[in-house]
Amino acid sequence: MNPSAYQQAVSEFTRLYRYQHLAAIAGWDQAAMMPGGGNEARGAAMAELDLLMHGTLTAPALATALQDAAQQDLSDDEQASLREMRRVWQSANLLPARLVEAKSLAGSRCEHAWRSQRQANDWQGFLQNFREVVALSREEAQLLADASGKSRYDALLDQYEPGMSSAELEPIFSDVKSWLPALIRRAMDKQTGETVLAAQGPFPVAQQRALGLDIMQRLGFDFDGGRLDVSVHPFCGGVAEDVRITTRYREDDFMQSMMGIIHETGHARYEQGLPRDRVQLPVGQARSMGIHESQSLSFEMQLGRSPAFLSMIAPLLQQHLGAQPAFAAANLAQLYTRVRPGHIRVDADELCYPAHVILRFEIERALIEGEIEAEDIPALWDEKMMAYLGVDTRGDYRNGCLQDIHWTDGSFGYFPSYTLGAMYAAQYFASIRRQHPDLDARIAGGDLSPVFDWLQQHIWQHGSRWSTGELVRRATGETLNPAHFRAHLEARYL
Amino acid sequence: MNPSAYQQAVSEFTRLYRYQHLAAIAGWDQAAMMPGGGNEARGAAMAELDLLMHGTLTAPALATALQDAAQQDLSDDEQASLREMRRVWQSANLLPARLVEAKSLAGSRCEHAWRSQRQANDWQGFLQNFREVVALSREEAQLLADASGKSRYDALLDQYEPGMSSAELEPIFSDVKSWLPALIRRAMDKQTGETVLAAQGPFPVAQQRALGLDIMQRLGFDFDGGRLDVSVHPFCGGVAEDVRITTRYREDDFMQSMMGIIHETGHARYEQGLPRDRVQLPVGQARSMGIHESQSLSFEMQLGRSPAFLSMIAPLLQQHLGAQPAFAAANLAQLYTRVRPGHIRVDADELCYPAHVILRFEIERALIEGEIEAEDIPALWDEKMMAYLGVDTRGDYRNGCLQDIHWTDGSFGYFPSYTLGAMYAAQYFASIRRQHPDLDARIAGGDLSPVFDWLQQHIWQHGSRWSTGELVRRATGETLNPAHFRAHLEARYL
Repeated sequence: MNPSAYQQAVSEFTRLYRYQHLAAIAGWDQAAMMPGGGNEARGAAMAELDLLMHGTLTAPALATALQDAAQQDLSDDEQASLREMRRVWQSANLLPARLVEAKSLAGSRCEHAWRSQRQANDWQGFLQNFREVVALSREEAQLLADASGKSRYDALLDQYEPGMSSAELEPIFSDVKSWLPALIRRAMDKQTGETVLAAQGPFPVAQQRALGLDIMQRLGFDFDGGRLDVSVHPFCGGVAEDVRITTRYREDDFMQSMMGIIHETGHARYEQGLPRDRVQLPVGQARSMGIHESQSLSFEMQLGRSPAFLSMIAPLLQQHLGAQPAFAAANLAQLYTRVRPGHIRVDADELCYPAHVILRFEIERALIEGEIEAEDIPALWDEKMMAYLGVDTRGDYRNGCLQDIHWTDGSFGYFPSYTLGAMYAAQYFASIRRQHPDLDARIAGGDLSPVFDWLQQHIWQHGSRWSTGELVRRATGETLNPAHFRAHLEARYL
Repeated sequence: MNPSAYQQAVSEFTRLYRYQHLAAIAGWDQAAMMPGGGNEARGAAMAELDLLMHGTLTAPALATALQDAAQQDLSDDEQASLREMRRVWQSANLLPARLVEAKSLAGSRCEHAWRSQRQANDWQGFLQNFREVVALSREEAQLLADASGKSRYDALLDQYEPGMSSAELEPIFSDVKSWLPALIRRAMDKQTGETVLAAQGPFPVAQQRALGLDIMQRLGFDFDGGRLDVSVHPFCGGVAEDVRITTRYREDDFMQSMMGIIHETGHARYEQGLPRDRVQLPVGQARSMGIHESQSLSFEMQLGRSPAFLSMIAPLLQQHLGAQPAFAAANLAQLYTRVRPGHIRVDADELCYPAHVILRFEIERALIEGEIEAEDIPALWDEKMMAYLGVDTRGDYRNGCLQDIHWTDGSFGYFPSYTLGAMYAAQYFASIRRQHPDLDARIAGGDLSPVFDWLQQHIWQHGSRWSTGELVRRATGETLNPAHFRAHLEARYL
């Protein structure tokens, strides 16, 4: 047994983190800065880096170090760190290089073709490439499942949401389905009688950007450790020490970019709040995609769309975009809680969003488990969209099952994280409100510290020290409890 | 003997090029985009990448491949490629990984601190970091010197200017020192009687940027393969497929940013004009720093400050910055050839610039050879500035020996390239003018193709196919001949 095995593993993961830094910055640059002519050289450089990271994780010496470290006398913190290193190590080492490469190639071919097939509403064309993506994803899932004893879909889900399972999700989502359609109808009925003023543009990009920066400042974004830029698909990238968030602007609509910036700032503050002394190791990094999403949705849904927050920032809108009646706080709150079932997930309001997610979860789970085939997707999509949202999608693949990028490259198992994030966020805020009965007054008065302090203390600083269940239990006194989500929606929309 | 040895070496160098791509983009980002708080993590990531590149170049398999390739039956082109791969291989293999990493870390720490220390005129603070950079640079120089039989300084110089030596430089620079101070005085005397109109600002940054982009377009910059951004210290970075140039703006002065952009566009067109099918190998990359500088100075000095070019772009100035009498072509030519000895190298006029370079060459040579220590620099600086330019720099480190970035990260041996570049550029234009006696008329008429075609045909497309001497001889009919530089200066300034 090697007495420095644990330290060796730490060194290797520290090196991996530095490679990930380069990958994150090169990826951000590709999306936010790079001119088109650089794409081929960038692709080659990033593929080389992928290979290098995979090689780092699959080197025999690391396997030995992790194995030997398990025999060492480690502190509790070190054991947690080892557990997380092993988790990352395992998911890289269970897959043969041949499969990783085949899936990457098939995924990038399918995604590339999808960009035009979606425009052309060409489901049959898409199927040609997509069948291979499904086959390879099932193969991947089977290998992960064989090792873990989970089902195929659960093995994929576990990569984004460690510890989560279909068995836990299904009753939660079934419950949501039992009350959500009626809640949507009641909210729409209530809103029918309300008068809402639309904001009148144009809103010049420079003014929207200045407003966004001003709001980021109030949301505590550390500008010495991050930036705001523009990309076609907004994201939060970079590294914990240098977080790069992006948005996109439309001159006829400030609402999307403003709320998008608030959303990404939530992701960013999680990254900026991770334990800086351990952020180079898996144990110091974000707990899961659902927990990451719970930060962005704490900022966007719990805070950002609340009347208190909107009344706090209403003067900023007037300052940056000029005064107009639509910027009255109450009107802003109405604008940002408008319920309108529609085809597109990313445009969905807070209330309709879970329906889009549940539909995708049900379809992708059945697909990966082999209960349905790719060609069965459109009929199921139509049926579920009608049942959950009353939206007719027949024949409209473009705004139906072809709308998302996730499946095109085989990212099955990700969708549940969005709604888990929304549920966790509601649960956090129930805790924060218990601690601070005057929360809305403080927010309206510009004091957001109760929110930031709670998230820092209960979520950010812990990274992946605890399992998701334990993290949430320590933070809120209970594991995932979707009742808070329902209560939040009913309070806001009824 | 391994029949695929040459191809193996090519594969390894192709991989190296991809790592260099990541290093170039991360380096550009650090200077142009990164917030200060990201510096430590970036430094660690870039040091890791340096180590990786060093490891790629020092792997035993590459040594064997290069050795075996030398026994293969290679074409002339392949032999040239092998020669350049061996040159790069050799300079990397002489340095232990420990030293490479230590120098990279010390350099990045010193450079980062310098950014604020320069502002604070804090020479003593700078010395704390700088002594280590000097010690590590001497160690590096000694190792290179031991292997090549060169002196320590020449060993560093050779990395930027393969084949150049102090023994060749010293008589050239001595000659320049023998006539330059008198030429500066005569030019100033001549200009005393002239009336020059200063341009009246302010010149908003957005307008200066639009002017710069317009000029870049006319200079043939490929915007699908590059960008213009802002950094404290302007540079040309990125990769041949995606060239990133930077400038800095002052609202009270458009002249610096405009000419700086022209300068960096010269570097950029060299990169964009390199042989794209071989740019991933040393033989397809820039020949030397002096040749690189000869491109930027062809654009800035030979072309950019010529009356013909300035008359061609005078209407653009009026279009972007508004009309004013100072924008008359003849007045612009006077402004851009104004001789004014001053403190700052990068602000120096064409005539004073060589004095700044010779001063730095003399100091850095003595420093690396161990004839002086870091703390001796300010006194020598003061003395030489007074002797060569009549400028008093005592106590003003900010505008004295703290002004340049080069020494902060240990880039000793680079400075001579600037004046070598000016000399090569004068020699090219003597050739171009022989071929095109109507050159000025064509430039004034907006036709820059004689310059671009000549540079593409004689310099850019050859990469490192030939040695510097051979490249220049094939292009101009003779090796370096500083007489063209003196003739150019006398023609322009007397």
